[in-house]
Amino acid sequence: MSDDAIGFLGLGNLGAPIAANLLASGHELRVWNRTADKTAPLVEKGARAVASPAEAVSKGGVVFSILWDDASLEGLVTPAFLDALGPGGVHVSMTTISPECARRMAARHEERGSTYVEAPIFGVPAQAQARQLMICLAGPRAAKDRVRPLLEAMGGQRIFDFGEAIGAGTATKLVGNYMIVSAFSVMQECFDVLQKAGIDPKPTLEMLTTTLLATPGNQRYAGYLLSGKPMPVSGIPAKDVGLFGRFAQEASTTAPLADAVKAAIERTSSRR
Amino acid sequence: MSDDAIGFLGLGNLGAPIAANLLASGHELRVWNRTADKTAPLVEKGARAVASPAEAVSKGGVVFSILWDDASLEGLVTPAFLDALGPGGVHVSMTTISPECARRMAARHEERGSTYVEAPIFGVPAQAQARQLMICLAGPRAAKDRVRPLLEAMGGQRIFDFGEAIGAGTATKLVGNYMIVSAFSVMQECFDVLQKAGIDPKPTLEMLTTTLLATPGNQRYAGYLLSGKPMPVSGIPAKDVGLFGRFAQEASTTAPLADAVKAAIERTSSRR
Repeated sequence: MSDDAIGFLGLGNLGAPIAANLLASGHELRVWNRTADKTAPLVEKGARAVASPAEAVSKGGVVFSILWDDASLEGLVTPAFLDALGPGGVHVSMTTISPECARRMAARHEERGSTYVEAPIFGVPAQAQARQLMICLAGPRAAKDRVRPLLEAMGGQRIFDFGEAIGAGTATKLVGNYMIVSAFSVMQECFDVLQKAGIDPKPTLEMLTTTLLATPGNQRYAGYLLSGKPMPVSGIPAKDVGLFGRFAQEASTTAPLADAVKAAIERTSSRR
Repeated sequence: MSDDAIGFLGLGNLGAPIAANLLASGHELRVWNRTADKTAPLVEKGARAVASPAEAVSKGGVVFSILWDDASLEGLVTPAFLDALGPGGVHVSMTTISPECARRMAARHEERGSTYVEAPIFGVPAQAQARQLMICLAGPRAAKDRVRPLLEAMGGQRIFDFGEAIGAGTATKLVGNYMIVSAFSVMQECFDVLQKAGIDPKPTLEMLTTTLLATPGNQRYAGYLLSGKPMPVSGIPAKDVGLFGRFAQEASTTAPLADAVKAAIERTSSRR
């Protein structure tokens, strides 16, 4: 194994195109995924598939992970993983998790002399392919400087630095997803009420999403509503709004609107 | 009285600059306001102040109104007002009201041979002054053609035509305000939670409102939150979200998110 090889853990909808970008930019890559069949397309492009997260890691090297949630990240950061990463290694974590979990992970790495950097991502798979991702970066400066060229190579068109303390990058990702998804839920409610009132929602949503509310997310969601197709997303919106609610709890406060948005998402999903 | 004079009813924060634009573009104006002292600045500029809505109207002419709510519009459209407007007259209603009230008003005008046109406005006073308003226009085609040059003269930079049936223009205004205001409420919740969690909200809100959520409304609200100054708005947000809730009721459905947003606005206001 070369010490320059980069580890890449998690080849889901976002992970796969991001890993492909890293490969395409000339980096040696060792890839792992929970279900091993997802490694095949990357192996065809030159990556090496490994059987466990620890095997993907070079001692003192850099490893990226993009998983599903707190539990999957906690399950990945085992003593074997940390031993393999060793002192001087950097783990760049791109999963959308809770800020509290991010801080716990940072401490677990620090104890072993390695560094945890948070780098959650805003972007859909098509944006990953087009290298148009936004990354919320936070962590110790030296580690950030080391991984920045890799973040650019993987498609990070815009990298926002949220300082050295772990938590603000992850919190920004949660806040952003909550704000985006709550706009979807409100738009869904408007769409439903307009239809019930016998008013065609199309001119209304088209006007608003090209003027006062012209965000990429709103335009995408209006497109789905008006085409009658459900959004091609899994449980991500409900999960991330739930994470924001937990973030509020951990800060000893409440987020009643996030609770209402989560309930609205669940009502809409159950209709399908 | 010249028959070409236009009536203008309601000289509040938006009405006053809009009426001033009409005057500045060379139109003869008769102005009325519930509290008469607000007419003085326009009289100085050449408008004629009258003592009642009916006196502002020319028979068969055009009258604009921009008031507070359903009740104030209902109180204005009296038999005396309708008699003064007479057959062939056009009433352009710009108040944010319920679609149901708009339809009732349209019928009341039609019975007397005059035409009700709905033209609710998106814009803050500074945008009225800069002639950068967006107008949601609906009503019978001939009446719309007649008033369109006046809507442009008063600052309607972009006029969106929602067809001939009354209701869709008003509904679009309610939907738009609800979507804008719900984004404010969600942002407020995020701001509060970030602060409680010991994370500076500034970089987070600055990033999000210049990228994924870069709407004029979000940028304005983030500016207020980060400057620590309360927004210079009266009860408008709560009122309009309440109107959306009533719109849902009249369509025999519910709007649970709108209810949650209204409650959030009330909690925030009570803190001040």
